[in-house]
Amino acid sequence: MAKDDVKNSKASNSTAKSGGKKKEVKKETGLGLTNKKDDNFGEWYSEVVVNGEMIEYYDISGCYILRPWTMAIWEIMQAFFDAEIKKMKIKNCYFPVFVSPSVLEKEKDHIEGFAPEVAWVTKSGKNDLEVPIAIRPTSETVMYPYYSKWIRGHRDLPLKLNQWCNVVRWEFSNPTPFIRSREFLWQEGHTAFATKDEADEEVLQILELYRRIYEEFLAIPVVKGKKSELEKFAGGLYTTSVEAFIPNTGRGIQGATSHCLGQNFAKMFEINFENDKGEKGMVWQNSWAYSTRTIGVMVMVHGDDKGLVLPPKVASVQVIVVPVPYKDADTQAIFDACSSTVKLLNENGFRAEADLRDNYSPGWKYSHWEMKGVPLRIEIGPKDMANNQVRVVCRDNSSKVDIPTSNLVEQVKDIVDNIQQRLYDAAKQKRDACIKVANTWEEFAAALNEKKLILALGVMKRKSKRM
Amino acid sequence: MAKDDVKNSKASNSTAKSGGKKKEVKKETGLGLTNKKDDNFGEWYSEVVVNGEMIEYYDISGCYILRPWTMAIWEIMQAFFDAEIKKMKIKNCYFPVFVSPSVLEKEKDHIEGFAPEVAWVTKSGKNDLEVPIAIRPTSETVMYPYYSKWIRGHRDLPLKLNQWCNVVRWEFSNPTPFIRSREFLWQEGHTAFATKDEADEEVLQILELYRRIYEEFLAIPVVKGKKSELEKFAGGLYTTSVEAFIPNTGRGIQGATSHCLGQNFAKMFEINFENDKGEKGMVWQNSWAYSTRTIGVMVMVHGDDKGLVLPPKVASVQVIVVPVPYKDADTQAIFDACSSTVKLLNENGFRAEADLRDNYSPGWKYSHWEMKGVPLRIEIGPKDMANNQVRVVCRDNSSKVDIPTSNLVEQVKDIVDNIQQRLYDAAKQKRDACIKVANTWEEFAAALNEKKLILALGVMKRKSKRM
Repeated sequence: MAKDDVKNSKASNSTAKSGGKKKEVKKETGLGLTNKKDDNFGEWYSEVVVNGEMIEYYDISGCYILRPWTMAIWEIMQAFFDAEIKKMKIKNCYFPVFVSPSVLEKEKDHIEGFAPEVAWVTKSGKNDLEVPIAIRPTSETVMYPYYSKWIRGHRDLPLKLNQWCNVVRWEFSNPTPFIRSREFLWQEGHTAFATKDEADEEVLQILELYRRIYEEFLAIPVVKGKKSELEKFAGGLYTTSVEAFIPNTGRGIQGATSHCLGQNFAKMFEINFENDKGEKGMVWQNSWAYSTRTIGVMVMVHGDDKGLVLPPKVASVQVIVVPVPYKDADTQAIFDACSSTVKLLNENGFRAEADLRDNYSPGWKYSHWEMKGVPLRIEIGPKDMANNQVRVVCRDNSSKVDIPTSNLVEQVKDIVDNIQQRLYDAAKQKRDACIKVANTWEEFAAALNEKKLILALGVMKRKSKRM
Repeated sequence: MAKDDVKNSKASNSTAKSGGKKKEVKKETGLGLTNKKDDNFGEWYSEVVVNGEMIEYYDISGCYILRPWTMAIWEIMQAFFDAEIKKMKIKNCYFPVFVSPSVLEKEKDHIEGFAPEVAWVTKSGKNDLEVPIAIRPTSETVMYPYYSKWIRGHRDLPLKLNQWCNVVRWEFSNPTPFIRSREFLWQEGHTAFATKDEADEEVLQILELYRRIYEEFLAIPVVKGKKSELEKFAGGLYTTSVEAFIPNTGRGIQGATSHCLGQNFAKMFEINFENDKGEKGMVWQNSWAYSTRTIGVMVMVHGDDKGLVLPPKVASVQVIVVPVPYKDADTQAIFDACSSTVKLLNENGFRAEADLRDNYSPGWKYSHWEMKGVPLRIEIGPKDMANNQVRVVCRDNSSKVDIPTSNLVEQVKDIVDNIQQRLYDAAKQKRDACIKVANTWEEFAAALNEKKLILALGVMKRKSKRM
């Protein structure tokens, strides 16, 4: 990718001098993608996350730079989720990134699941550490010794903590931006209850929040489900997840997981409490997480051959306003109209910007903002000025419509809402079209070849770790 | 500390069963601090951050658990600062936690400053890495190779990025919670400009935001200043900082720093651009950061022998409402009055909670919330009910006043504002009382012995690294 990447930067540089006619600019910028989504999906994905300015490849394999275009999406989802869990009286904390081996290895099944991917710090400066120290792949073993210290009586329960942090899993199998990276950002919730019923209930409450992130924010339909014994979280009792579907690979992808850990960790870490009758009990625990993987799934599901397609609810720029000057028309008036349109939209709660750069042609700007996936483009030219209208173009289906400036806000609201809904419907339609029920192994094998989403039991093998 | 710590947990456990009279409770809970701030400041600090439930000591030396009571303060400051820098068009991003040695060592002065404290990852699972990989102590060398790639023409400038993240500096000199820890949370801003004037201007804009964090939020007076050549940031051009003062140590403490890096890193990392005349130029860069150290300074400045003292602006609980049932009084009515008081205050924008636990005496609750530093306590008992009033007690000066429920909100607002102001004034008075002007070395030495804050030049020695 570094190659594409440099090419891309060089290009935008060259145009910095060119400007000029659309075709010429397009040619010089090399804005379009060299790969087609349906022809070579993997290459298309690697190219679109870079050209869309979400990711920059890093000089350490499996690590990626999350650019502002990505972080804005992450922060919008974070604001929603963080507020929801605070309503549930879950509090944020921050535990260290380092784990001592003795603690890490306390829960055998758990460590077995993670051991091969654990990164170890063995030196500081020129000195060897007395004992190597692990970087958290997840924080059960980091946190639970302190749960054991903090929880004494039933009045200390429930204990409900969450943290927003980075974790490291030194994967070697083909790293992929967002989807499989050696470091990623996530939230991890860790809760302890007096009874299994409370734990069971929370598992599903959290799973519902994950569903909402995918369906309401990312416009991606998901299936809630319970993982098989083989795939459940290492050391847990049972694992629930939201599963999305990537039509181009014909595969389901784990979107986020909400685990009931049962009392297994409580036993290992001696997290006991005394109930109101003075009897000793062991806590029931959950852990749950969603990561920056969500953003990769969004790109894979909605993106097209022109670039990213961002759902309006998570787009940091929902509306891009582009002036379309023409020969002897009053350019300044057009630019002013663009600015006041942005002002009006911002005042009405939209995230809108104008691209008033004078060194890029309108055509170049169209391609640029299409690559970045901005849901709605507003074009303002002399003709629009004359007719008190603006030209509105939807990123998802390229539909164009002229709307009178008189009720711009109402119309834009409808159009933006429709885009969000259309993206969801389209994704759902594609997924449902791929669902195939398999009753026999033969049917299953056949469906697999057709890249279908198969309704069958116990067919998945990968042991689930990514919480 | 682990000792204090365990004692503390055990204690609160035992009270879970005791309850009962204030004195008895106090004795059993060991709520009070065993160390006095003015007698043995260091032990007092270690004890108050634990008993105030801000910090839990961790099994890896120099690493600390930030409990919800701490994170709430961090998030309040973060919400302010993040909004302010977004107004300045600075965008958030996230760069990897790992740095390859070749890049880390590119800027010699810089790496010299950090090398001894860099933590190195050398293994993943059971395998040795081909090259050891460093964990970021700060991100100049992580980011700037990509600035070189992204910045081509003058239209790519300014480039203004920030990230909220963890960094690691494996310090061995007496680790202290918040103040000197091996991992800490911070924001780090990294900006690049076409001209030195723009860079100089931003350095001071950011420094002003740091002043506001200390003075407006943490109620701590600071002095803005420029560091000496000896103390400036390793590899930078000049370093500005806000300096706070800890009366008990008689020392200034660096609160946050805003560096102008000049063109030094630009040279090393070849961050060049072409200006509007087509001439090649090198960018001017800044980097700036504040960390969780801010919270430690707050504890040191405001805390007292009863525990933490939180400024209302950063306290996650500004008002704690405690019911004071009495013999045959209508307990339920009192509890209801507490709940409705909390509801009223929350509706009016205060962060208020009621402590309705039935297993702790009012006296125990007073001590508990004093230890946690809640600025305002409201007591509601039968007499208050009868007189349509509540008893209000200020944490900072223990002043008590009965206020009529009729204009509770207005009064509470005034009182809370006064507490914030009083904390600042008291801190400023203590600091100013310690300022001494030294004209000669003899005067300087004498003043130092008297734990004075000395106005003199070039007296500090420690090389500044903590951005």
